[in-house]
Amino acid sequence: MSETGKKVAVGIDLGGTAVKIGILNAAYEILAQTSIPTDADRPYQEVIADMGKTASALLARNGFAVADCAGAGVGSPGTIDSKNGVVLYSNNIRWDNVPLAKELQKYLPVPIYVQNDANCAALGEVLRGAAKGCQNAVFLTLGTGVGGGIVINGKIFEGGHPGGAELGHIKCGAEGRRCTCGRADCLEAYASATALIHDAKEMAKQYPDSLLWALCDHDLEKMNAKIPFDAADAGDPCGRLLVDNYIQYLADGITDLANIFRPDLIVLGGGVCAQGEKLTEPLNQHLRANCFGSTVAYVPRAVVAKNGNQAGMIGAAGLVSL
Amino acid sequence: MSETGKKVAVGIDLGGTAVKIGILNAAYEILAQTSIPTDADRPYQEVIADMGKTASALLARNGFAVADCAGAGVGSPGTIDSKNGVVLYSNNIRWDNVPLAKELQKYLPVPIYVQNDANCAALGEVLRGAAKGCQNAVFLTLGTGVGGGIVINGKIFEGGHPGGAELGHIKCGAEGRRCTCGRADCLEAYASATALIHDAKEMAKQYPDSLLWALCDHDLEKMNAKIPFDAADAGDPCGRLLVDNYIQYLADGITDLANIFRPDLIVLGGGVCAQGEKLTEPLNQHLRANCFGSTVAYVPRAVVAKNGNQAGMIGAAGLVSL
Repeated sequence: MSETGKKVAVGIDLGGTAVKIGILNAAYEILAQTSIPTDADRPYQEVIADMGKTASALLARNGFAVADCAGAGVGSPGTIDSKNGVVLYSNNIRWDNVPLAKELQKYLPVPIYVQNDANCAALGEVLRGAAKGCQNAVFLTLGTGVGGGIVINGKIFEGGHPGGAELGHIKCGAEGRRCTCGRADCLEAYASATALIHDAKEMAKQYPDSLLWALCDHDLEKMNAKIPFDAADAGDPCGRLLVDNYIQYLADGITDLANIFRPDLIVLGGGVCAQGEKLTEPLNQHLRANCFGSTVAYVPRAVVAKNGNQAGMIGAAGLVSL
Repeated sequence: MSETGKKVAVGIDLGGTAVKIGILNAAYEILAQTSIPTDADRPYQEVIADMGKTASALLARNGFAVADCAGAGVGSPGTIDSKNGVVLYSNNIRWDNVPLAKELQKYLPVPIYVQNDANCAALGEVLRGAAKGCQNAVFLTLGTGVGGGIVINGKIFEGGHPGGAELGHIKCGAEGRRCTCGRADCLEAYASATALIHDAKEMAKQYPDSLLWALCDHDLEKMNAKIPFDAADAGDPCGRLLVDNYIQYLADGITDLANIFRPDLIVLGGGVCAQGEKLTEPLNQHLRANCFGSTVAYVPRAVVAKNGNQAGMIGAAGLVSL
């Protein structure tokens, strides 16, 4: 048994570049953590073997026997069959029908739970983050894509079948932008960091005098999702337009989610949410103005996630009952 | 006790024109039913008194004592506080903060449950209808407006707070159409029967040679949601265009809902669903082509509701545990 006699959970965040592994207690505090490169080009068996051996070693190194560990949760990108612990498909790590739980248990003989990484991040924010104590929350991560997670009555709602809670893939905008999923005009095609960067590059090409150029050192390859916000702050009309458009699209998406889920809060994660109130204030104005029945019904607020890069690990550990 | 010794439930469908009241058994079969005019211009107390007295009389007339009745469910239009049995706001019957459950119990002294009418219809289709036996279903009613209902794990999901499950108020289309809720471009503004009728009238005005004119007796006031489908069947290009556009908007909306909920089925109710496969076949083609991860994940089918005008009454009775 551990020194305190209390059980711990392992939380694993499987990313395209790195696998983050942590040991967490019942308060979802990270007692120890490490990370290894994913190196996703290898056979999945090797990736999972490394994951399991590293987790076991981390437990041992910190004085925990396998019996001290109530289970391990893994947050994985892609479409997950959580019931069977299988990664059905992940574009990110190029996995196809990988029996993650079964394989991991060879190296880490505890109950294994697998969930989509954005679902884990949503749960993490509810357990110990911006939505702590909320029973109902919707989470959007604004990064390379737009990931979604839904918490209903304190638990992840992943949809009735694998492939639910894909909140980046609701319709938004009408420019005919092709989404990575194949459909046109998904929220992801307008509200991901990738989309904002793409739009900023196009805008810069059209307006050679824009401050956008100076902010990316006159090299469009250095464009990032912060630059349009910085340009807007400095009074650049191109920056302002980019930010206003971006927020309008995002606001449309979260208003849909408010009308569907009417959650306690809408939590925004991912790189773009570093903009804090520059993002949430106009979003909240839009929500108050556009939510169905906003004069009589509760209007959820949009807030910024608190768990940052640890959101996935915390939420993955949250899959384990402690 | 009733002759069989088994308890029954009262299901009440409160509509803008009529109040339908039924007695249902545990199999959600309607043992007896009646209806009275709503006459919503009266003080709400009178409407509810009539509702309660009529339900009590219906029970008595059919040999049921009050003790035989496990409870009464009421499906009401508008935004409902189901916890307290209050109609927060209903545009349809012009009610504002009406304590329906408390008031009704004066005349029908059994446990009273109040829910949004579309939520009830959704539940009705799961209990005894097109989605019978499904654990997860999404319901859309295509009528004057577009109502929505969500069933998760066999139970109504109404959102974390009143004002959720407003599935007619998700963004769809980009023509700037003002919705009844105040927001622009809601699904309701494109996929309600009202929207289709409006579009058909505009189309007819533009094309004096269209078959639409003959089908409405050359009187646009007689336009209805069936006429565009009939015109399309007869080869009229205006009818075809109207139907194709209508289905495209609806398909976008239900694809969003499929990506969010990944339900067993998507059930369509309301007048437009009388079109049956003319509606569901192209919708299902669109779902298969556009659902996220449709090559690896379950793609829900769109089907037509079975309970018709009784859906609300059946679902309202379903609010009562029998």
